[in-house]
Amino acid sequence: MKKLLICLLLLPVLSTAQNEDPSVFIRKIYDEALENGEAYENLRSLCKDIGARITGSAEAKMAVEWGRNLLESYEFGNVYLQEIQVPHWERGNKEAGWMISESGEISKLHIIALGGSVGTNGLIEGEVLAVNTLDELELLGKEKVENKIVFFNRPFDQKHISTFRAYGGCIDQRWDGTSLASKLNAKGVIIRSLASSSDEHPHTGSMHYEEGVEPVAGAAISTKDADLLTEWLAKGKVTVKMELDCRTFPNETSYNVIAEEKGHEDDQIITFGGHLDSWDVGEGAHDDGAGIVHCIEALRILKKLGYVPNHTLRCVLFMNEENGNWGGKQYAELSSEAKEKHLCAIESDRGGFLPIGFDIEGDIQQVGEVQAFTSEVLEEFQIFRIQPGYGGVDIGPLKQYYPEMIQIGLAVNSQEYFEYHHSEADVFESVNKRELELGAAAMAAMIYLLDQNL
Amino acid sequence: MKKLLICLLLLPVLSTAQNEDPSVFIRKIYDEALENGEAYENLRSLCKDIGARITGSAEAKMAVEWGRNLLESYEFGNVYLQEIQVPHWERGNKEAGWMISESGEISKLHIIALGGSVGTNGLIEGEVLAVNTLDELELLGKEKVENKIVFFNRPFDQKHISTFRAYGGCIDQRWDGTSLASKLNAKGVIIRSLASSSDEHPHTGSMHYEEGVEPVAGAAISTKDADLLTEWLAKGKVTVKMELDCRTFPNETSYNVIAEEKGHEDDQIITFGGHLDSWDVGEGAHDDGAGIVHCIEALRILKKLGYVPNHTLRCVLFMNEENGNWGGKQYAELSSEAKEKHLCAIESDRGGFLPIGFDIEGDIQQVGEVQAFTSEVLEEFQIFRIQPGYGGVDIGPLKQYYPEMIQIGLAVNSQEYFEYHHSEADVFESVNKRELELGAAAMAAMIYLLDQNL
Repeated sequence: MKKLLICLLLLPVLSTAQNEDPSVFIRKIYDEALENGEAYENLRSLCKDIGARITGSAEAKMAVEWGRNLLESYEFGNVYLQEIQVPHWERGNKEAGWMISESGEISKLHIIALGGSVGTNGLIEGEVLAVNTLDELELLGKEKVENKIVFFNRPFDQKHISTFRAYGGCIDQRWDGTSLASKLNAKGVIIRSLASSSDEHPHTGSMHYEEGVEPVAGAAISTKDADLLTEWLAKGKVTVKMELDCRTFPNETSYNVIAEEKGHEDDQIITFGGHLDSWDVGEGAHDDGAGIVHCIEALRILKKLGYVPNHTLRCVLFMNEENGNWGGKQYAELSSEAKEKHLCAIESDRGGFLPIGFDIEGDIQQVGEVQAFTSEVLEEFQIFRIQPGYGGVDIGPLKQYYPEMIQIGLAVNSQEYFEYHHSEADVFESVNKRELELGAAAMAAMIYLLDQNL
Repeated sequence: MKKLLICLLLLPVLSTAQNEDPSVFIRKIYDEALENGEAYENLRSLCKDIGARITGSAEAKMAVEWGRNLLESYEFGNVYLQEIQVPHWERGNKEAGWMISESGEISKLHIIALGGSVGTNGLIEGEVLAVNTLDELELLGKEKVENKIVFFNRPFDQKHISTFRAYGGCIDQRWDGTSLASKLNAKGVIIRSLASSSDEHPHTGSMHYEEGVEPVAGAAISTKDADLLTEWLAKGKVTVKMELDCRTFPNETSYNVIAEEKGHEDDQIITFGGHLDSWDVGEGAHDDGAGIVHCIEALRILKKLGYVPNHTLRCVLFMNEENGNWGGKQYAELSSEAKEKHLCAIESDRGGFLPIGFDIEGDIQQVGEVQAFTSEVLEEFQIFRIQPGYGGVDIGPLKQYYPEMIQIGLAVNSQEYFEYHHSEADVFESVNKRELELGAAAMAAMIYLLDQNL
């Protein structure tokens, strides 16, 4: 009897949600996010009850359990794990470095191994060779690079309004630099942290070695250390000593964690997700705990409001974005094998900051189509910028199998992101409650608009 | 010879700045702000070398000196002080409060006197009477209010996207509440801090007594204390004891601090400013140190780029916005007496957060006119929202004498403002360097566009 009563009470909600003025329904989404939001407490739990969660770690395993339990607690239609393989790299216990000036001054480096680096096998030592570009190093050649500690020192170009552009302008140093230096017989590599601020914590991130290279170790030092090292180098030779204990272990089994609410019209899928793994420092709060709780909260809100989707809404907590994107790749491959139909995909992986828009990855017609049914209605909620742009790393591999699909990235205020990114500073306390909630509401609003209009 | 050479070198800059594509010149403004910006270090100095600076304090006097010295150091055309009268209220040494439950639990309150409150003249004590609105208190009447400590407990409505709306929906409790409770013979008043967050620091702000009222003391308690008090009240009676030592002293002489760059076409004035005074807690970093350095930096950048304005650009560091706005009022009055011509005025007083737009106060035609020459060109710089809205408190009194003038307020991300506002938390460290710099660039860009197009 009680159940029947609840069903009857819910009926009006279910029937009106579909036919409402979109801005009225989106207002309800925002009200729920801002007044009864659960994103912030979910993020606190992910950060504090689990912590940093690189694939291969116990924390990553616990994060899978955390994600499944949370999704099940919301009683979403279908909650399941998707088995994938993931790399397993560990930082180890030893991570230290010093710089020594020609006159004998010693300064301890704030240093962190790059993800995927080999260890140093004890304390290594070399004269520092500073370069600003990979081309510059290549031109110097083996003779001048041999046995040196190569220091990639190109800073962020602060003139970019979007800090992602500044990051993009520096990332080759981290991704390719160590491999190139290895080829030229360097002793090791340090890079200026890819950060927009001047501070004392170093920022890690992924790197790779080209096939066949005899690898040397690569690490990042803090931007302040990089400035001091630059000063010392202007006065004379500088030696760096460092020890890194990192190692790569055999691949492991892990999981993408998935929740679905089935559509009542067809079986086309709207995928939305972030990544459940993080680097092994800090708490992965902005990167990408925020994206995870954005997506879970978006589905929770739509369900709570009694929204019955036209298409299948699928929330994916991707595993292993940080060092390989194997979760995203396997998700796309398995989707293709299962001949799933994908309508579009949305990702949140730029932090829990104030949402300002969405970037649409598609042809000019697709961008225009999405703009037509989103721009005006979302402006009221201070979502100003629906423009061509990049979707996201996790959803990216779907493009290979579904070249026609629209991909969308949630765009947020980028000014502070690279102060926290991949560092000890990326903790729960750096996330603002209301900004996180607005991000979740923006995701829910976009999912709703796509479901109604595509 | 050297001087002549410098003049010749500067000539191309001077002559091209006026005729450039606006987005090219604005790009230069942003480059200068982001690469060679001085706003952040100026703010550090105002916060750390001066500190909190309520009118009547030694710090406010030092802030005037700080402002004049800084403006003179930039060699602006004309730097001067404008004498004004300001109120002088002091918090005093004693500021404490406790709440005591019916069962004898004691909890110390995080309490702060409201600006302008009388003191308690020793420790006062009363049973707490909680209300959500002034109307509710009025309906209770003298009989039920007499000898009570009235507790205004209406929280921010979190559903507003802009936190300024939530603030506006609560401010009567702070501004009028104590006066009303005084009329009804209450023993004293506490209010839930006007804050968007749940935390432990109380937020002060201005209040007033109606003429002829026998005043009692008013204070704010932290939002967490307000929650605990609400819990206790649900279980039974609660007593509050508090002591406040605040007093009002005779008015004093102070100054608006002004810098001008004369226009080469006419003597119409574009006023832009923020307020130099702050409350007496924290460091007045967001409120309104940020606005002060925004405006100074805007003028510095325009001068550095060799920009020769059409109209007079006048940067005003207003004194006494917080408890009376006597600086703004006197500025307007003196302007009118001197028959100055005002083209428009712009204010920055919403914190050093990410700028997102400008609010235009004027008739529909004026708003349209400003939108026409700003919206498109500023979008590239992520200034998305040029819309009708409020200018600012300091520039507001000009409207009385110049009803036709356009007033403009810099709109920034408002999500965090009321976590810091009027509290110990409003310190330099809460301001992000790049966001502050973007705010200064946005101000400079708007001043330039107004000067070119109005």
